[in-house]
Amino acid sequence: MAVGPSELPVFFPVPGVRLGVASAGIKKPGRKDVVIVECPEQASIVGVFTKNAFCAAPVLVAKEHLQQGTPRYLLVNTGNANAGTGEQGYQAALQCCSALAEVASVSSQQVLPFSTGVIGEPLPTDKIEAALPAAFESLAEDNWADAAEGILTTDTRPKGAVAQVTVNGQLVSINGISKGSGMIKPNMATMLGFVATDADIDTDLLQEMLTISTNRSFNRITVDSDTSTNDACMLIATKRSARIDRADQDAVDTFQQALDNVMRELAHAIVKDGEGATKFVEINVEGAATAKDALEVAFTVAHSPLVKTALFASDANWGRILAAVGRADVSHIDVNRISIWLDDVQIVADGGRAADYTEEAGSAVMARENIQIRINMGIGGEQDTVWTTDLSHDYVSINADYRS
Amino acid sequence: MAVGPSELPVFFPVPGVRLGVASAGIKKPGRKDVVIVECPEQASIVGVFTKNAFCAAPVLVAKEHLQQGTPRYLLVNTGNANAGTGEQGYQAALQCCSALAEVASVSSQQVLPFSTGVIGEPLPTDKIEAALPAAFESLAEDNWADAAEGILTTDTRPKGAVAQVTVNGQLVSINGISKGSGMIKPNMATMLGFVATDADIDTDLLQEMLTISTNRSFNRITVDSDTSTNDACMLIATKRSARIDRADQDAVDTFQQALDNVMRELAHAIVKDGEGATKFVEINVEGAATAKDALEVAFTVAHSPLVKTALFASDANWGRILAAVGRADVSHIDVNRISIWLDDVQIVADGGRAADYTEEAGSAVMARENIQIRINMGIGGEQDTVWTTDLSHDYVSINADYRS
Repeated sequence: MAVGPSELPVFFPVPGVRLGVASAGIKKPGRKDVVIVECPEQASIVGVFTKNAFCAAPVLVAKEHLQQGTPRYLLVNTGNANAGTGEQGYQAALQCCSALAEVASVSSQQVLPFSTGVIGEPLPTDKIEAALPAAFESLAEDNWADAAEGILTTDTRPKGAVAQVTVNGQLVSINGISKGSGMIKPNMATMLGFVATDADIDTDLLQEMLTISTNRSFNRITVDSDTSTNDACMLIATKRSARIDRADQDAVDTFQQALDNVMRELAHAIVKDGEGATKFVEINVEGAATAKDALEVAFTVAHSPLVKTALFASDANWGRILAAVGRADVSHIDVNRISIWLDDVQIVADGGRAADYTEEAGSAVMARENIQIRINMGIGGEQDTVWTTDLSHDYVSINADYRS
Repeated sequence: MAVGPSELPVFFPVPGVRLGVASAGIKKPGRKDVVIVECPEQASIVGVFTKNAFCAAPVLVAKEHLQQGTPRYLLVNTGNANAGTGEQGYQAALQCCSALAEVASVSSQQVLPFSTGVIGEPLPTDKIEAALPAAFESLAEDNWADAAEGILTTDTRPKGAVAQVTVNGQLVSINGISKGSGMIKPNMATMLGFVATDADIDTDLLQEMLTISTNRSFNRITVDSDTSTNDACMLIATKRSARIDRADQDAVDTFQQALDNVMRELAHAIVKDGEGATKFVEINVEGAATAKDALEVAFTVAHSPLVKTALFASDANWGRILAAVGRADVSHIDVNRISIWLDDVQIVADGGRAADYTEEAGSAVMARENIQIRINMGIGGEQDTVWTTDLSHDYVSINADYRS
């Protein structure tokens, strides 16, 4: 299941960024499961990675190679996460980098590996290596849609987002693709996201903008509260269009907003394709004493199995929302000041059932596919927003059957 | 569904403590839904209550009346939690206390109210008041089993535990009953628990012992991470058997251990009857840097939907356990020192798959109804234990259908 229509955007060309796809047969024969992203020389490349202490071998290697200099290739495989695989997994990730480096005539430090799939099984390096020539052969600038397919695992559909803005008279394009459906509560990154732009931005500013956008998108979504070992989101700037630097705040703001839009759309696409999802839910907390409190309340409601099953049942069981708010680990709370709305229907006023609330009005909102839960804490000026899904039978089925 | 056999113990008489049960028709006609517990004069009575900021009206009144002096009656209703009901709900709780006070010829401050059931609907005080004479009429010392039935909501079976110990040559008895099945992640108490002993213990020591036992039982269980608005656990000491005071540490230790056993058994019974539960899972974390870290890791694993669905599927998907440990919010972690066992089968050694681990061995453990997940953090001397269930289709069904 998934929420809303599935449609990839028409991707813009980002000259110099080429994508290649192949089938290595890692988990299922014939499935596209190896993707290469080629970046031009001189491009700025930055990334954000999982904060899970058990970060996977490819994450370790990608971070090391990113620090060592000038990456030219991102190598992605699905079907195997190469996580929990110890030293052997680390060597396997390096081996894949070397193999692609040889095919592409670069140094192996210029290849960054990304893996997603089952945790704890040895990476089938032979299969991946055998598929690299075909993937390299297929490199093309118009291959974004194929690459969006090639990075999927339990996802039911590919995810992409684009933006174009004019900066100082020059057209700047941003393309992004992402994957993810379960084990989704990113912490500094999503499962996997790859974004490229032709803007001319130096690495340190680019990293800062990626981190800001991540905190407004991938770090504000949750399907099941489980943070993956393999989360990573990469941002490439080819420097072939408008120059954007700190001296020009307008240009920075314009680009940041466009990047935010692309990243948020990619993050929303992951939630809408969340395992078993039948609802897309925005949880907006305002009037909180601190920004941390606002986020904590939003995530506590988003993670509550009782709220999530009520959403699945289209049951306006506002007592469950109220109980979740009440158990959130916050610095300040006054239950008599809290108000809650489902879309435009107020369900709680001053900590109790709103006087003019009716079950009919609440149920009408809960029956919708897109729902906003707005919580006003009534004690401060801080706010935050997270996005999540319901908890359905299909979530249990998908995760109880995943390895069988 | 529920785990293991269902059998109430044979309760011991606790002279002076009488229990009465009646059907008020609050939610379902004919269902036992009103319970009175009568305590003798001079008894010590202590309690622990929910820390949910939205604590229900009866919790507020029970705490106030407990402070005001000498409670004689606990009045319990199911079918309606009288939570999220504001000032009207507070008055409704007081009104029930007054009604029972009149029937029993005590002051209304000597009655403590407890409610459990649907949140946010007005308490039907008329129905409860009408049932009080019959409940009072039925008061009897051997009515524990009936009372255990009378406090249930979505529970599939009654829950009780008993202990007898000899203190300074005198036989001391402890009887306990509890209810709870969903919205279970107690914080200082369970949904509802009532425990009585004939020991002679002053209020301050009794409160201390209850708090200790609660932290070793109800505060170490979770079904779905949702803390109820109505949690309460009361402990009555009638003072008709052995005297236990701080001067006699042996007596204190003996009683504490017996109380721990009763409370732990009641807590386990709630987990085993957890909504949709097919597995009873002990999560033991040892070798942690701090006690807080040990508890945090245990609860993070216990709350992980991916670990819980793997348990439901009897799938030894240890990568999900490892990923949950890795995202726990702890002060110290070194992934290369972590070892994990399923019962006696080591699945992770030094942060990676254990060398002699086989899927067959792991699957054999996961197929069991009672499973221990033992996690050694390898960096300190602190430990903790929590108990939980799996996440099944029935959990979703029960909570998606609860109000319909």
